[in-house]
Amino acid sequence: MSASREHRNKRVVVLGGGLIGAVIAADLAEDPTLEVTLADLRADEMAPMPQLTLRAADLSTPQAIKELAETADVVVGALPSRFGRLALEAVIAAKRPYADISFMEQDPRELDAMAKAAGVTCIYDCGVAPGMSNVLSAHAAKQLDRCERLTIYVGGLPRERRWPFEYKAGFAPYDVFEEYTRPARVMIDGEVVIKEALSEPELCDFDGLGHLEAFNTDGLRSLLDTLEMPQRLEKTLRYPGHIELMRVLRHAGFFDEQPVSVGDGQQVVPRELTAALLSPKWTFEPGEADLTVMRVLVDGEKDGVARRIRFELRDDYDPRTGRTSMSRTTGYPAAIVARMLASGRLHRPGVHPPEALATDDDLVAELIAAQAERGVVYRRFDEAPEG
Amino acid sequence: MSASREHRNKRVVVLGGGLIGAVIAADLAEDPTLEVTLADLRADEMAPMPQLTLRAADLSTPQAIKELAETADVVVGALPSRFGRLALEAVIAAKRPYADISFMEQDPRELDAMAKAAGVTCIYDCGVAPGMSNVLSAHAAKQLDRCERLTIYVGGLPRERRWPFEYKAGFAPYDVFEEYTRPARVMIDGEVVIKEALSEPELCDFDGLGHLEAFNTDGLRSLLDTLEMPQRLEKTLRYPGHIELMRVLRHAGFFDEQPVSVGDGQQVVPRELTAALLSPKWTFEPGEADLTVMRVLVDGEKDGVARRIRFELRDDYDPRTGRTSMSRTTGYPAAIVARMLASGRLHRPGVHPPEALATDDDLVAELIAAQAERGVVYRRFDEAPEG
Repeated sequence: MSASREHRNKRVVVLGGGLIGAVIAADLAEDPTLEVTLADLRADEMAPMPQLTLRAADLSTPQAIKELAETADVVVGALPSRFGRLALEAVIAAKRPYADISFMEQDPRELDAMAKAAGVTCIYDCGVAPGMSNVLSAHAAKQLDRCERLTIYVGGLPRERRWPFEYKAGFAPYDVFEEYTRPARVMIDGEVVIKEALSEPELCDFDGLGHLEAFNTDGLRSLLDTLEMPQRLEKTLRYPGHIELMRVLRHAGFFDEQPVSVGDGQQVVPRELTAALLSPKWTFEPGEADLTVMRVLVDGEKDGVARRIRFELRDDYDPRTGRTSMSRTTGYPAAIVARMLASGRLHRPGVHPPEALATDDDLVAELIAAQAERGVVYRRFDEAPEG
Repeated sequence: MSASREHRNKRVVVLGGGLIGAVIAADLAEDPTLEVTLADLRADEMAPMPQLTLRAADLSTPQAIKELAETADVVVGALPSRFGRLALEAVIAAKRPYADISFMEQDPRELDAMAKAAGVTCIYDCGVAPGMSNVLSAHAAKQLDRCERLTIYVGGLPRERRWPFEYKAGFAPYDVFEEYTRPARVMIDGEVVIKEALSEPELCDFDGLGHLEAFNTDGLRSLLDTLEMPQRLEKTLRYPGHIELMRVLRHAGFFDEQPVSVGDGQQVVPRELTAALLSPKWTFEPGEADLTVMRVLVDGEKDGVARRIRFELRDDYDPRTGRTSMSRTTGYPAAIVARMLASGRLHRPGVHPPEALATDDDLVAELIAAQAERGVVYRRFDEAPEG
């Protein structure tokens, strides 16, 4: 982003035109100072969008991603998890800044030195949770003298509850089952403790929704090592009853990844059949309303007084744009961070989790305000703990 | 059974040495006037039993069964359902009387004319339900001037309830799923009405067990056409909660018999995988206690007064003999009917459901008394309806 380029429009490439990538690209394309390209294997099948270039591209090889990245000033990643790491490395190799929401198994910070050497800023986990949950946690922590406890509750849900699962997934059921089986890492008294997934259910009250049930999932990720609070916990929210059914399915073996002999010796991976059966039942119908709910609690002390900073999010499907709540709450943070990268307001070479933004109060304020403009409103409450 | 043979022992062949067949054979072998052979494909692997001849035999062909039957005076059938019909026909071809508990899809009475022509008596469904439920229903009906309603509640359960299914099966889970999916035929106002399986759950109280949950299953069979009562219903009993889980599994498709494409196009029959996963969880451990509970209600009128005749059964695993309640309650009626056939006390050529015995009060009394001697006690109550 040299000074000589300041007056031309910035070029942004969005990798992956799925539900969320398409919303990110459409949001960026509304900005007249940006030239936005959405790259996807099946771009030819996508409906044209104003001010947006669709490019059909195979995003499964590092070389293809590197070449695409080199045509842009900023890259946004919204790829399936199996391409997440590969894309991050290719974008760094292209020496381009990157706002990413593609999940990856490995710690993206393994590529921190490579990004620093390339002089590029990469923000990963740039969605709602992980994403906004990280930013808000770190932002709140900064405002207290001492922090004791972080508790994050988050869930994406259908607005209408239907028997028996009262759940639909904004992504593949196979990945949901992963969330329901992978042991959850939480921080207790400063030590990482492993909890069983789906464990420690607790009822939480949310205005307009009534009781939701929160349970342990492995969601803290970078928040396990970037914060200084002895107690840290993230729980996933579902309508009450859902997790009991998931515990039954898991107990019975329907989430197992080891093949089982059935009938005449056929080898079947139970989780694959379960995904095939539940996929049609857990997929949102076109126009079906979803919602996102998140509560971030940071408990600590300020000027010798116990304090709690609480953030609340309740976001709904937008019938006007047809954008799901999940795509809005996950996509907008990535789109806004991409703008920060494009403008140069965010320039900090390396690979960073989103809480890195919290060192700059202006960036946090902008992230919150820009989402509020889009109808995704984070409300803040300052109160006494357990208030 | 010619007169010249009267003083020699009667020979009984039991077809099938499974859980129930073995108990039938052992029970018959205790009678010094009988010479008992237990025929099974894997007889070589079975432990020897006193006064019992074990014979290894392939029971999957009519010829093999006919030859075996011809060595006997009376035959008892305790075969897997796929061999039920074939065995009945072969035993009739051998011109031998038959007490059978092998389930078969078709109506066994299709072979009634053949049995009449051969001059042999065949009693099918000779267990607890169908079996004793039929006998007691018809026996009670006979004692009233007019019958309005028959209600049968019956279930086999583990004594210890364990999360999440609170159920174990005395037979293959695949057959249980059949019971949970096959539409249930009931009689309402004199018309056969089809109900969804697992439908119309109702809580019933049983002394010593508390609440059980009863739901529609297709269990009436011959009772749909042999009785004259406008209302007829059989419901299966489980611990509360079980059927909700089964409804969920069925709704999600886990009981489907149509193959589903999973992963890379592999075709999988969901019910087969579900049976493979649940089989180990639903199988009784050696020595694990089961129980059987049955309630038969016959409502009607006698001498112008509304009357209810109620039979109650509660039977438990016998730790002394190691016989499960299911094998006792199902096997003893067959063994006792086999004795009636052997002695000639029951001689009525044709193929009959067990309620045919109810025309003879002495046979019913003997059936009840002989089971009571074995610890399987049917208690009778005469009371006002809804009493």
